[in-house]
Amino acid sequence: MFELLKSDAESKARLGRLTTARGVIDTPVFMPVGTQGSVKALDPRELQEMGTQIILGNTYHLYIRPGLDIIREAGGLHRFINWDLPILTDSGGFQVFSLAKIRKIKAHGVEFRSHVDGTLLFLGPKEAMEIQRLLGSDVAMVFDDCPPHTSTAKEVRAAVERTIRWAKECREQPRAEGQAVFGIVQGGNHAELREECARALVAVQFDGYAIGGVSVGEPEAEMMKAVEHTVPFLPQNQPRYAMGLGTPAQLVELVARGVDMFDCVLPTRVARNGTAFTTRGTISIKAGLVKADWRPIEEGCECFACRNFSRAYLRHLLNVGEILGLRMLSVHNSYLFLKLMSDIRAHIAAGTFTQFRREFVANYVPSQKVLATRGQTAVRGADE
Amino acid sequence: MFELLKSDAESKARLGRLTTARGVIDTPVFMPVGTQGSVKALDPRELQEMGTQIILGNTYHLYIRPGLDIIREAGGLHRFINWDLPILTDSGGFQVFSLAKIRKIKAHGVEFRSHVDGTLLFLGPKEAMEIQRLLGSDVAMVFDDCPPHTSTAKEVRAAVERTIRWAKECREQPRAEGQAVFGIVQGGNHAELREECARALVAVQFDGYAIGGVSVGEPEAEMMKAVEHTVPFLPQNQPRYAMGLGTPAQLVELVARGVDMFDCVLPTRVARNGTAFTTRGTISIKAGLVKADWRPIEEGCECFACRNFSRAYLRHLLNVGEILGLRMLSVHNSYLFLKLMSDIRAHIAAGTFTQFRREFVANYVPSQKVLATRGQTAVRGADE
Repeated sequence: MFELLKSDAESKARLGRLTTARGVIDTPVFMPVGTQGSVKALDPRELQEMGTQIILGNTYHLYIRPGLDIIREAGGLHRFINWDLPILTDSGGFQVFSLAKIRKIKAHGVEFRSHVDGTLLFLGPKEAMEIQRLLGSDVAMVFDDCPPHTSTAKEVRAAVERTIRWAKECREQPRAEGQAVFGIVQGGNHAELREECARALVAVQFDGYAIGGVSVGEPEAEMMKAVEHTVPFLPQNQPRYAMGLGTPAQLVELVARGVDMFDCVLPTRVARNGTAFTTRGTISIKAGLVKADWRPIEEGCECFACRNFSRAYLRHLLNVGEILGLRMLSVHNSYLFLKLMSDIRAHIAAGTFTQFRREFVANYVPSQKVLATRGQTAVRGADE
Repeated sequence: MFELLKSDAESKARLGRLTTARGVIDTPVFMPVGTQGSVKALDPRELQEMGTQIILGNTYHLYIRPGLDIIREAGGLHRFINWDLPILTDSGGFQVFSLAKIRKIKAHGVEFRSHVDGTLLFLGPKEAMEIQRLLGSDVAMVFDDCPPHTSTAKEVRAAVERTIRWAKECREQPRAEGQAVFGIVQGGNHAELREECARALVAVQFDGYAIGGVSVGEPEAEMMKAVEHTVPFLPQNQPRYAMGLGTPAQLVELVARGVDMFDCVLPTRVARNGTAFTTRGTISIKAGLVKADWRPIEEGCECFACRNFSRAYLRHLLNVGEILGLRMLSVHNSYLFLKLMSDIRAHIAAGTFTQFRREFVANYVPSQKVLATRGQTAVRGADE
């Protein structure tokens, strides 16, 4: 299912190919997030034009709205949203722990109230896998316990133990035809818990492994450490997925640490705040600074927005509240993340990744504001 | 500039061709409204794919934001918004009288405060024409006095006199190269004032004539009468434009009364309320009724939304607040208005317009809610 095509000589970066029921995915890959069955502000044609290989959907959100009856009647998520390429669904574990109210953790799952209307619901390994089977996603994620960044070591240990137990339960549930299932490694910033969780999940034998419990408000250094403490215990010949990350420079650094798959709401979320990503950092298009700036968002960018519109026009659109403004920033930002991955793949193939990494990270000025956006609210396909 | 290709034998419907600096427009034509330099929620590619021949822009709104310096520096409105096809600009008269606060009507225009930030501004024939010259629209409209539906006969007479005087002033102002200028007939529901205004404007010799003072909250019968009282006094060999109208069935009836050009914010405005137009009336997609309705918005419709998505999916998108929902309803509704005009042209050409008109109007069930939307707030490219 996963073919490791090349390992970089000077880093842990890998070039790979993930074969799913609905197509082949070149890795490293960025997956745009379609939490509620739509990548925010974008249509399927725009997504395909910008080189999207796979998108995300979310079990928790789709379970609450539109609900399983509708998805079942539609013939699965792909048909419901008219998307023929692969879909990865998150299990809902993260959302139950971050979004839902009045949680009650039980042996086989979590009782909680819907954040929309307060309905009492229950999600556990069995339910999450059954929903994902009905959604018919190409990659399903196990139902995990994702504790907040501020948890004590004892709490993180409990979450790891629960995550392992639930992962085993997930492994035994029926799947959709051709559906892969990935385990999720928890363990916070505790190296020994990361190792323990990774080893235990690998023993269960999943089709791929995700690094969870990152993008939960922790500082960047800690996030990098969590990945470094996990990757060595994951199989070489299987895909590795860092959940809910990150900024462009972080993605480059995470590829260098051996991660193959990424998802993040940042491109579309910051777009709606009037901010654009560039290869040198973010710029606020909504702010007055670009009022008479006739350049595209980023010179040389070949996205639909940069081929058609100036910063000055986009600034005007955002300023007067025209939807086309946030649409075009969503197009550009998503394109930039996808193009970055395509560049990364080309550089790994050419043996020039280390040089690319050095230059990219040196040129990229992280915006404190964007990093804060990441930290404040959970970014893992959660509540965008 | 305007070529009358065919007059319908059984009605006043006309098939025509309007040649502008930026291309030829087949009439009858519907013009999507891009008040602030963007047809709400749509991009230029989508507009062109659905057969848009010309769009509207608005002097008042663009004067306030982004302001003339920006438009001038961009090299005109077409370049600012990246739209190569014709643009018609409304003069701002209607907005000054409907949107702006603390108006003071003077001999050569109106002093008012911006509805955005309260800045004291002045617009009159000279200013409106100068702004439209800078915008570089292909068709400019004269600066008129558009009184509300509730005005007394005396007030309407004063508005007509002012409109005629200002029209003459507009006629003498410099224009952009190749820019046509249309007069606007006022006169409310007073047949004699409509005739007087039309005759006076025709004497000034404009490139086309608009029927204004409709879509200002009057009942449909009165609106039709206002058109009927105006059209006979307009030249056969020049285009006639009914401003801010209307529903699909109204457009068919207005074509039958000899109108060639239309603009209306209804398609995009009701889209944002979750309502779709069909050839049989409107349907609320947001309401629960279509929760498990797997048909497209309208069967047989070839718009992007109907080719790709079910009512059930669109309903879900609207229900959870996803932008793609209102985007797709805006696509469908705008397409329907444009396709209707294209069907009307084909039927006039084939000599089957009367039959088409009878069947269309019989099948179309006007929605009181949509008619109310029209009445409550001004629809003439105003405040969408």
